[in-house]
Amino acid sequence: MTTDRVLERVASTAPYALHPDRLLPADPGTRAIARELYASVAGLPIVSPHGHTDPAWYAENAAFPDPSSLFVIPDHYVHRMLYSQGIRPERVGVPRLDGGPVETDKRKIWRILAENFHLYRGTPSWIWLNHAFQTVFGIDERLSADSADRIYDKIAAALERPEFRPRALFERFNIEVISTTESPLDDLRHHAAIRASGWSGRVVTAFRPDPVVDPAFPGFVANLDTLGRITGEDTSSYAGYLSALIKRRKYFVEVGGCTSTDHGHPTAKTADLSAEDAAALYARVRSGSATPAEAELFRAQMLTEMAAMSVADGLTMQIHPGSRRDHNPEIFASFGKDKGCDIPGPTDYVEDLKPLLARFGNRPDLTIILFTLDETVYSRELAPLAGHYPALKLGPAWWFHDSPEGMRRYREQVTETAGFYNTVGFNDDTRAFLSIPARHDVARRIDAGFLARLVAEHRLDRDDAFEVAHDLAYRLVKQAYKL
Amino acid sequence: MTTDRVLERVASTAPYALHPDRLLPADPGTRAIARELYASVAGLPIVSPHGHTDPAWYAENAAFPDPSSLFVIPDHYVHRMLYSQGIRPERVGVPRLDGGPVETDKRKIWRILAENFHLYRGTPSWIWLNHAFQTVFGIDERLSADSADRIYDKIAAALERPEFRPRALFERFNIEVISTTESPLDDLRHHAAIRASGWSGRVVTAFRPDPVVDPAFPGFVANLDTLGRITGEDTSSYAGYLSALIKRRKYFVEVGGCTSTDHGHPTAKTADLSAEDAAALYARVRSGSATPAEAELFRAQMLTEMAAMSVADGLTMQIHPGSRRDHNPEIFASFGKDKGCDIPGPTDYVEDLKPLLARFGNRPDLTIILFTLDETVYSRELAPLAGHYPALKLGPAWWFHDSPEGMRRYREQVTETAGFYNTVGFNDDTRAFLSIPARHDVARRIDAGFLARLVAEHRLDRDDAFEVAHDLAYRLVKQAYKL
Amino acid sequence: MTTDRVLERVASTAPYALHPDRLLPADPGTRAIARELYASVAGLPIVSPHGHTDPAWYAENAAFPDPSSLFVIPDHYVHRMLYSQGIRPERVGVPRLDGGPVETDKRKIWRILAENFHLYRGTPSWIWLNHAFQTVFGIDERLSADSADRIYDKIAAALERPEFRPRALFERFNIEVISTTESPLDDLRHHAAIRASGWSGRVVTAFRPDPVVDPAFPGFVANLDTLGRITGEDTSSYAGYLSALIKRRKYFVEVGGCTSTDHGHPTAKTADLSAEDAAALYARVRSGSATPAEAELFRAQMLTEMAAMSVADGLTMQIHPGSRRDHNPEIFASFGKDKGCDIPGPTDYVEDLKPLLARFGNRPDLTIILFTLDETVYSRELAPLAGHYPALKLGPAWWFHDSPEGMRRYREQVTETAGFYNTVGFNDDTRAFLSIPARHDVARRIDAGFLARLVAEHRLDRDDAFEVAHDLAYRLVKQAYKL
Repeated sequence: MTTDRVLERVASTAPYALHPDRLLPADPGTRAIARELYASVAGLPIVSPHGHTDPAWYAENAAFPDPSSLFVIPDHYVHRMLYSQGIRPERVGVPRLDGGPVETDKRKIWRILAENFHLYRGTPSWIWLNHAFQTVFGIDERLSADSADRIYDKIAAALERPEFRPRALFERFNIEVISTTESPLDDLRHHAAIRASGWSGRVVTAFRPDPVVDPAFPGFVANLDTLGRITGEDTSSYAGYLSALIKRRKYFVEVGGCTSTDHGHPTAKTADLSAEDAAALYARVRSGSATPAEAELFRAQMLTEMAAMSVADGLTMQIHPGSRRDHNPEIFASFGKDKGCDIPGPTDYVEDLKPLLARFGNRPDLTIILFTLDETVYSRELAPLAGHYPALKLGPAWWFHDSPEGMRRYREQVTETAGFYNTVGFNDDTRAFLSIPARHDVARRIDAGFLARLVAEHRLDRDDAFEVAHDLAYRLVKQAYKL
Repeated sequence: MTTDRVLERVASTAPYALHPDRLLPADPGTRAIARELYASVAGLPIVSPHGHTDPAWYAENAAFPDPSSLFVIPDHYVHRMLYSQGIRPERVGVPRLDGGPVETDKRKIWRILAENFHLYRGTPSWIWLNHAFQTVFGIDERLSADSADRIYDKIAAALERPEFRPRALFERFNIEVISTTESPLDDLRHHAAIRASGWSGRVVTAFRPDPVVDPAFPGFVANLDTLGRITGEDTSSYAGYLSALIKRRKYFVEVGGCTSTDHGHPTAKTADLSAEDAAALYARVRSGSATPAEAELFRAQMLTEMAAMSVADGLTMQIHPGSRRDHNPEIFASFGKDKGCDIPGPTDYVEDLKPLLARFGNRPDLTIILFTLDETVYSRELAPLAGHYPALKLGPAWWFHDSPEGMRRYREQVTETAGFYNTVGFNDDTRAFLSIPARHDVARRIDAGFLARLVAEHRLDRDDAFEVAHDLAYRLVKQAYKL
Repeated sequence: MTTDRVLERVASTAPYALHPDRLLPADPGTRAIARELYASVAGLPIVSPHGHTDPAWYAENAAFPDPSSLFVIPDHYVHRMLYSQGIRPERVGVPRLDGGPVETDKRKIWRILAENFHLYRGTPSWIWLNHAFQTVFGIDERLSADSADRIYDKIAAALERPEFRPRALFERFNIEVISTTESPLDDLRHHAAIRASGWSGRVVTAFRPDPVVDPAFPGFVANLDTLGRITGEDTSSYAGYLSALIKRRKYFVEVGGCTSTDHGHPTAKTADLSAEDAAALYARVRSGSATPAEAELFRAQMLTEMAAMSVADGLTMQIHPGSRRDHNPEIFASFGKDKGCDIPGPTDYVEDLKPLLARFGNRPDLTIILFTLDETVYSRELAPLAGHYPALKLGPAWWFHDSPEGMRRYREQVTETAGFYNTVGFNDDTRAFLSIPARHDVARRIDAGFLARLVAEHRLDRDDAFEVAHDLAYRLVKQAYKL
């Protein structure tokens, strides 16, 4: 393509239209290959093995209330950026823990997003929001102070229609299966309701035991009481506690179709204590008097115990370490967890995973998927580990790195040592239901671009690239998560 | 553009001419967009909010003495590279602390640079030097052993002419405002002289309190005496010491037009001690008997105190941590500070900044600009922090990373989480006056290239890209530094 | 080139043929420059200053036994990837330490490689294996389950012919000089035999003292006895031990043509103890009762002692730190060292090298080449160190990073601070003789691509780029290693 034609194309693209070549490499030769690769996977069903959508949506299939409740209030990516420029969470309706006053005028909240939409330039939120506005609601102008009300009205009107209810969108998004994430204390009533409803959409749960394995979790001791009560086990002893967890995993499999567990520890620390030491440590944490070091050791021990349970029941294990949660005490006190004040820190995998790997790392019948917020470990630690241990696989670029540049760095830094086949496709990991198609689309485009570069540089053959593109978009995730 | 035309253009470019497309992406489509973006900002005035030029230059407006004194002797990037290949600082005229003999023949020094000019291939010094040779002095051949004398003579002759005096160059460089950096003990006489002179050039100072807040700074205790004397405060008490600092900041604002402070600590450690503990710690460091740990804690406490003062007087705060200063004892002993033997090390921001952020991080009326020499923190720590805390902004790629690849990595690793609007444009941070236009030009070109890629990949609209280019080159720096 | 022509070219390339433009940048303009740069160095002789081929091959010149013994069994990159997918080392013939049964059917082993060849897509093993298949054996189809036997037969037949013996391949590969690596306890009989044979191929040794300087090395104490015996020195004293090492280095120079030493420590720790403390520490490690901390301190001290010996005898020193060796206890127990279960970890250079650098860093007559497995130190630590200290140079991208993306990151992150002339060209560092031409070819292509980008972006002149390409492929390695 000549320079003039490139410029002309750019110029003639209405700024609010999603370009069919978006996110593909600029070099025309590479783009042509990427375009074909992307086309070959663009229509594949979405397999979403890890995320945080609310199962009540699918169970109740109620209409989403309004544009701000859908796009602003629950999305920590969105209000985090606004807050960084001084717009407090109250102003965009984020509920206070003390029930204090927050903005309730949804249109006013929407206007704040619209007036500040330039802040998202260059960020994945920009991509996700525009993708949803355009592909889901047919918005054909850019969000701005001027267009705010028109777009609000258009989305609000759509949300009242049956084809914008959760199940209809689920089907329209071509979701083959989606996993939510629940605490072991959850009764999975929504999952049961979905199954009982006769609806064909496949929604499964994932077992996230942080509330009952992390002594620093709010309400930990009371949670252990509850765990005992709902399982009929005596959680005052370590043996009873472990039995309760095993029972609960079984319940998740039976009632929630669960195929995986998820562990969000501050570090990747693992331990393999003697039965005696583990029981003594449990007694300390059970009493609520554990020191931070004991809490860390207990979490470490529980990762290894969870691996042992996974060997027995076949659940794929996910480890999501490295977030310094709730870094901002003021925001945490006012608004609680998951409100955008989590900051990553350096994370060690080589030493920290050793105890677990020494015991289970050589088992090809176990799958442990590692994630990171510390990109320095991609080439230094994660790819060498996953390129060796049969039990290990690498999860996709996560959280702050679930973005075009982040995904590109992931492939560039992981592939040469771990290959493609020690990775597990894409996770959207989102609470933002409307962003799911956009996120999977970004991943497919970036992978197509990466593969296209390998083809253009004659490092991968064309036919191989098509096979790999399919594997990354569909096959690997189904295999790793047994979906 | 066809391949043949590309090659032809490359071949037909005389090797010593600055190419109009230099530093723009090679892909013709992307380059065409980058060229337009660059053209839209190339002529904007230079706002230089942080640097180390000598205010005496602007005050006295004396001629620069000779080419080597301008380009070689004071530039640690230049003699560092020569030293790495065994050419000692004495041989290029760097003064010894003991007054021992060093080369004084400026032409001989210049020839050493010329003979070794290939060492700078691929480095920013290559760009900066060639840019100054060509745009300032009209040199039309490459520096080499053969051309050394001709170029020396041409530059030397130019330096005698009035249009090469500091003020004339300042105007020719289209500098709207430049900041120097002074110690609180400086009387700012040069700044006062500039103002008194009636010259229209705007030169401001920045408040760099290291000599009086870092117990490891040479002469620290004596510096506190001086600080007391010049402010009329009693620096034997912590209260008097803090008052002295507040007074001195006020003096910097009034006499030097100061709008910012700058802090060059070895780490990003902050502390928020009780008034009592802080006073007791001050008594220790005041006595000159502080341990290294106490010195570190005092520096940490002073960052928080400085933030408190900034809340009161509105000065923007810059934190430049992470350099292991004076790594080479022999060179330090012979030549003193800032002679090229500073080496970066890993730097933590997430834990280290917590005390300061817990107290002031949520204030939108405070601006703290973070810099780093440890690129691993861009995506892991700095972008998440600046993408959340209202008080935080990110400074540009710094020192070793003030280079095409360094700037590109900065945008690629920072933008997706922090956006563009939590960054503050460019700093040249230089002592090398002649390199200022080159450095700002590099930044504008690299940013144009980055934005062009986003446009070419349809991740950013054209009109948005033009606005962002302008923001990055001009608006954001003025806003962040209140200039 | 038009998009259509690019696609056509890709399509018309038989998938099993090495493309002449492989690994060059996709942008046509940049590729055209890269092609010329590559062409200018493609035919240069191979200088291989560091590696692990077996000197017996060149001494005895016996035929390589079969395809699997050549390509699978000894290559830890190959069986590491198979193992990551659950294929145990026994199944591909890796010998067990206990002599237990492993697969001996070489054709069966080959079929396992063939059936799993897709695992290597995107990895350097894919490039190296295909390069050797095609350029050495003329294989014209891709390795797969279907082609496995045909390819096996073709290679097996070739190996019986004289032109596939080690010396013939050495000559065909255009190797000017290759270095093997031996323990100080090795008698260098193969090196002596090569020299006595009258063959013109130049094979030198490198002095790798880990077995006698690392107290954690298996058999360390017995090794010291042997060292004493073969040198006639009394290794019960530190003085005798140091004399023995000096003698042994001399022997390596005289018998093995040695020009360099190599040090594979877990960290880059160095120390500069007093003579008394060093002797006392030696007594501890000599007795076999050293703690891990003492072992670490002894290794640290020995790096400094080795630097002192290098100042005296002129051997170039290589430091290869940062591998957590034998991370997997089960595989280590079954198969021993170097079987793919080494994992890198974070490595500090700035503090750890200080004692050695304080003593010897300023000597331009000493060459210490630093390598890393921790890419985060390229721009943060290694480039600033090598861009300052006359004694330091940077080794090329190593081990897991000896790959297209790894080499590209190396140049991008190192050049701007250290330049090209503080680097030392390429090391293949391999046991896989057949991969040597492929590895050097990859390095030359990636460097050509990097330089071409600098030219295309007008950051480097064409004539300079040709000179640098030649320096990187040939001149710098000969100079740094005195070959």
